[in-house]
Amino acid sequence: MVEKAKMAMLLDFYGDVLTDKQREAMDMYYNLDYSLSEIAENTGISRQGVRDRLQKSEHIILELEEKLRLYERFCSMKADIERMIKQLEQIRKLAPAEISSIIEIAQGLLDK
Amino acid sequence: MVEKAKMAMLLDFYGDVLTDKQREAMDMYYNLDYSLSEIAENTGISRQGVRDRLQKSEHIILELEEKLRLYERFCSMKADIERMIKQLEQIRKLAPAEISSIIEIAQGLLDK
Repeated sequence: MVEKAKMAMLLDFYGDVLTDKQREAMDMYYNLDYSLSEIAENTGISRQGVRDRLQKSEHIILELEEKLRLYERFCSMKADIERMIKQLEQIRKLAPAEISSIIEIAQGLLDK
Repeated sequence: MVEKAKMAMLLDFYGDVLTDKQREAMDMYYNLDYSLSEIAENTGISRQGVRDRLQKSEHIILELEEKLRLYERFCSMKADIERMIKQLEQIRKLAPAEISSIIEIAQGLLDK
């Protein structure tokens, strides 16, 4: 069982491989925190239909991550970049302009 | 038409979504530079079968990249990291140990 916050991030990462309907249901459930019944009401399918759609979507996403490990790699990169920024900040006084510009690049990486 | 070097990199990135046979044919073609006939000989299928297998595999990989753009994002990150390392090297004399340790983290990112 993947926790909700992690699935929301995986969805952000891999969501574009889903169909529009799958992505819509996943978005409602993981980002907007709708209940199954609320999603059913909003999409006009049964509660069980919503459950199936979510499960299928989760399966697609988890299988991709299991094979590609791209999200895991991005998380590990993110941790390193944050560590780098911390160390840069500690020595920023040595060359404020130069180091600020490097920090800016590193921070830009976190938004890619 | 995607150039051979780029497809080799996309294969490195997304190859694990392919079946073993697809990946084997792609590896022979894009990494080992075998001809279609040589792959046919090595895998015991027809030259046309090899062509079909490669085309199917390329389609899977290109479709994934079109949706996820993960390879494109990694390339863009790589360029930024290299820029960062260049700038760090220019100011390394200010705090050799500290800056070397930051460069080490940045170089580690390139291998992820």
